[in-house]
Amino acid sequence: MAYQAPMKDMLFVMNELANLEGVSQLPGCEDATPETAEAVLEENAKFVTGMVAPLNHAADKEPSFWKDGTVTTSKGFKEAFKQFAEGGWQGLQHPTDFGGQGLPKLIGTPCVEMLHGANLSFALVGLLSDGAIEALLTAGSDEQKATYLEPLVTGKWTGTMNLTEPQAGSDLAAVRSRAVPQGDGTYKVFGTKIFITYGEHDMAENIVHLVLARTPDAPEGVKGISLFIVPKFMVNADGSLGARNDVQCVSIEHKLGIKASPTCVLQFGDNGGAIGTLVGEENRGLEYMFIMMNAARFGVGMQGVGLSENAYQQAVTFAKDRVQSRDVGGSAGPVAIINHPDVRRLLMNMRSQTEAARALAYVGASLYDAAHHSLDAAVRAENQAVYEYLVPVIKGWSTEMSQDVARDGVQVHGGMGFIEETGAAQHYRDAKILTIYEGTTAIQANDLVGRKTVRDGGKVAKGLIAQVRATAGQLAELQGEAFTAISKQLEQGAADLEAVVDYVVANTKANPRAVFAGSVPYLKLAGLVLGGWQMGRAALVSQQKLSAGEGDKSFYEAKIVTARFFADHFVSQSSGIRSSIIEGSAGTLALDVDLF
Amino acid sequence: MAYQAPMKDMLFVMNELANLEGVSQLPGCEDATPETAEAVLEENAKFVTGMVAPLNHAADKEPSFWKDGTVTTSKGFKEAFKQFAEGGWQGLQHPTDFGGQGLPKLIGTPCVEMLHGANLSFALVGLLSDGAIEALLTAGSDEQKATYLEPLVTGKWTGTMNLTEPQAGSDLAAVRSRAVPQGDGTYKVFGTKIFITYGEHDMAENIVHLVLARTPDAPEGVKGISLFIVPKFMVNADGSLGARNDVQCVSIEHKLGIKASPTCVLQFGDNGGAIGTLVGEENRGLEYMFIMMNAARFGVGMQGVGLSENAYQQAVTFAKDRVQSRDVGGSAGPVAIINHPDVRRLLMNMRSQTEAARALAYVGASLYDAAHHSLDAAVRAENQAVYEYLVPVIKGWSTEMSQDVARDGVQVHGGMGFIEETGAAQHYRDAKILTIYEGTTAIQANDLVGRKTVRDGGKVAKGLIAQVRATAGQLAELQGEAFTAISKQLEQGAADLEAVVDYVVANTKANPRAVFAGSVPYLKLAGLVLGGWQMGRAALVSQQKLSAGEGDKSFYEAKIVTARFFADHFVSQSSGIRSSIIEGSAGTLALDVDLF
Repeated sequence: MAYQAPMKDMLFVMNELANLEGVSQLPGCEDATPETAEAVLEENAKFVTGMVAPLNHAADKEPSFWKDGTVTTSKGFKEAFKQFAEGGWQGLQHPTDFGGQGLPKLIGTPCVEMLHGANLSFALVGLLSDGAIEALLTAGSDEQKATYLEPLVTGKWTGTMNLTEPQAGSDLAAVRSRAVPQGDGTYKVFGTKIFITYGEHDMAENIVHLVLARTPDAPEGVKGISLFIVPKFMVNADGSLGARNDVQCVSIEHKLGIKASPTCVLQFGDNGGAIGTLVGEENRGLEYMFIMMNAARFGVGMQGVGLSENAYQQAVTFAKDRVQSRDVGGSAGPVAIINHPDVRRLLMNMRSQTEAARALAYVGASLYDAAHHSLDAAVRAENQAVYEYLVPVIKGWSTEMSQDVARDGVQVHGGMGFIEETGAAQHYRDAKILTIYEGTTAIQANDLVGRKTVRDGGKVAKGLIAQVRATAGQLAELQGEAFTAISKQLEQGAADLEAVVDYVVANTKANPRAVFAGSVPYLKLAGLVLGGWQMGRAALVSQQKLSAGEGDKSFYEAKIVTARFFADHFVSQSSGIRSSIIEGSAGTLALDVDLF
Repeated sequence: MAYQAPMKDMLFVMNELANLEGVSQLPGCEDATPETAEAVLEENAKFVTGMVAPLNHAADKEPSFWKDGTVTTSKGFKEAFKQFAEGGWQGLQHPTDFGGQGLPKLIGTPCVEMLHGANLSFALVGLLSDGAIEALLTAGSDEQKATYLEPLVTGKWTGTMNLTEPQAGSDLAAVRSRAVPQGDGTYKVFGTKIFITYGEHDMAENIVHLVLARTPDAPEGVKGISLFIVPKFMVNADGSLGARNDVQCVSIEHKLGIKASPTCVLQFGDNGGAIGTLVGEENRGLEYMFIMMNAARFGVGMQGVGLSENAYQQAVTFAKDRVQSRDVGGSAGPVAIINHPDVRRLLMNMRSQTEAARALAYVGASLYDAAHHSLDAAVRAENQAVYEYLVPVIKGWSTEMSQDVARDGVQVHGGMGFIEETGAAQHYRDAKILTIYEGTTAIQANDLVGRKTVRDGGKVAKGLIAQVRATAGQLAELQGEAFTAISKQLEQGAADLEAVVDYVVANTKANPRAVFAGSVPYLKLAGLVLGGWQMGRAALVSQQKLSAGEGDKSFYEAKIVTARFFADHFVSQSSGIRSSIIEGSAGTLALDVDLF
């Protein structure tokens, strides 16, 4: 069975945990009623499951390919992107002024999750366009907006992000691409960019490259980087396409996964210079690029959730279908393997992590909406701060978790999982990029430590921890083993996270190497405790619904079980992680480089 | 830099932790002096690094392929196997009577580790031959031994294990292949076997298939399975090859990893019946197959260690070479990424797990030697029991760990790790089979619970735990933070493992589903605590050497650091795992199948 949109869980999280009702009362979000949300999700699910999901496995087997500077994308991608554009899906969260639908992030997020869940390689092109749109909305001139936004928002054109260079990796201080002003308001851009996702393809008429480069007198380091628009085809005043610009795709990478998405090496200016225009002000490129990056980081977190959901669904289908070996309890004959306790454990691992990460991300999306639409500046600022704390956790934790989930998915399949035809292995391969691009997990964790924890003295983190404790307290008042178990683990998790936050705040300045040696474990701990908190909240709501006799009884019972599993098997790791962070840095850092 | 044999650590573990001196005093092991061991390892390392390692990546890119029933192996494999055979490496641990070198397992094990570490796909053919040799040594008739053993031991021919059938997976009760007696002592074998590693290839003159099948009146289930030899080419009385037997390779699989090793679908008897001879007695096939399996399981554990070592070495080389971003402590310019704390953490993860798993496995090999060579029956029995307890841990834990290590290895490489040309991704793909074949981790864990823990009431496990505590006690007496830290974690680890063993012993009969829901976590806990114990022992020895001013100071200091890291970051997980096992089964098992 191909990927199906997990509508029930998505709507539950939106309505019960992420306050969709509240979002729909924000100025500008009035159309985002729960009814509209459900209708949009259903329409999106139809498109995604009908058109995009079926291409995923075939495209992995016959990836996009390069020939003589052009890239031919996998079979079906071009037509699917046409329908994606026509359906208005690219513009879902973008302003109506430029052809978008202007819906809140809380509605856009599940749609993005579906698209990525169904077909990561395909969905990437839209993710990159989203980033380009965000950057132009923030920093583009009126003319740039008028020229580029509508075609990008409507999916007529696509966008790219050009950061990485061969010598530079994630280190933008090392960017060497040059942009030389021509005196007419344009620049000639020269340089080589690598790892450019959809840097060349055949799915849209034009490609809008956003490129980091240095002007001739720019200072060294990250303070001398500017952002340029370099279109594949020049754009005439009437919006029609002009001459081919001097940017060439000289090769694409042979990758472990997401094979259908072309990862390009782009050569700018080999034939006289690629013509570009400056976005915003000179030397502020990094700042603008971070706008794209932050949108993209949240999106990559959703890739983790979507991929996990797909891997989970596939493993469940296999485990229900595959009959093998007797039950350890002693059945007469062989049973479907879903009955074997360890297969059950693997599936619950996959299910509970996916649900926890989804809930945390949707709550993040809701905070974003409040941060952008509330009339009250204090409310906006408060929500923005919490959202920003969560972004590296959503990106880093959801993607690391997706690799565990994909691995468990292969394991459920046994030997069949290792054979490419089942598709389980594709998730395992595809997932590996998620902890690397748009900033590795370590880069997310550095952000979490530096900008998100130390800078405000742990205030936002402590606020979240207080909420975790409040949820634990409410759970403790309920009758039933499951609630007691969740409450206990959340109390401990909150205490462990608090201890780590205190440690980070107290030690980063004096001993940065020790703190950063534990930054990724801190990020993981935050993901487990905050994800567990959302699952605890879900259990509370579910119990209320059950007590009131409302809704789908099985769904709520399952939610309580899943929340308990997550608490017992994931939140329970908190004390070990705390001790690794607080006591473990000496061992991490002691060895001389020569001894490795 | 291609794979290098980690000679220093291998010899340290053999000499200081696995009692090579003691092994060399066992009857029949007199040649296995530390000097001989070192010479053998050096010779093996020369062959492996010179001949086998360089083929690994190219063979992944151009795997073995099937055409018209024959399999052509990757470039260089045939010649390398010829030299492997001529060097006597296949026969290292096998009896001199049949052309082997008769060396103890403790010397064979590092050689096997090197081979697998250098090139998993290539090394597999020898692993399968080892299994066939073991089975024939134990259960073969004199005639079968005379016919088959010498060519197998000398690498003239190779062996296979034919268990799995399309409908059966790991469930041998479901085997349907038939063997019909012909009245002349031979049988005609019919059936389809899948996942047959090196079931067909061009590297040896003949292939000796060991095949599970049912005789006409065999009882149902696993008690009606017999083991047959079905050679690819019939063997004449003088040992020369006769007619081609009726076994055909009808296809090979397109796999996630170990692509150069052909994984075959074998069709027996489509043209009248494949001629085979019975091994041992009818209906005891499973028992004999387990002989092969147990040897192979230990070998797969070594694949995990070898692959981890290779991934670690590659990541270290990259991390020393790659210069990117400033140090968090505030260096002036960019530094080699090995200086970044999180890269350091990833490398220490890889290093410490690899060393811990190696130490545990070599100690296991030493126990095996005592179990097979001691003159004292009680000593033999005691060592055998501990060895058998360790086999599922060595197999299950080392291979699960190798997937973590390979994943960390890709992560160290960043975006370059996702590009196939670096080779980091190959380890990530290759490693995934290790937790599946020769029994999934769940099957190892079931073995650990049922046969290895419950059956003796936890006696062997408790004996090991007492030794862990003794080591923790010795460490507590030393001065220095590192020793205190290791001791503390080992004490807690021992307590957690003991609690879990008590729980398993007390509950398996009454509540098997609950216990088996925690069987894989129990296996992991055993691996962490017993691996940590070996690292603790290594730290003790290292401190003694340092105090005495003996040997390589840096090596011993690094060992203490690595032991501490393992304790702080891995043994520290013990309490969380204990709680998942003892309190977590309700959540694992509660959900109705329909709710997945």
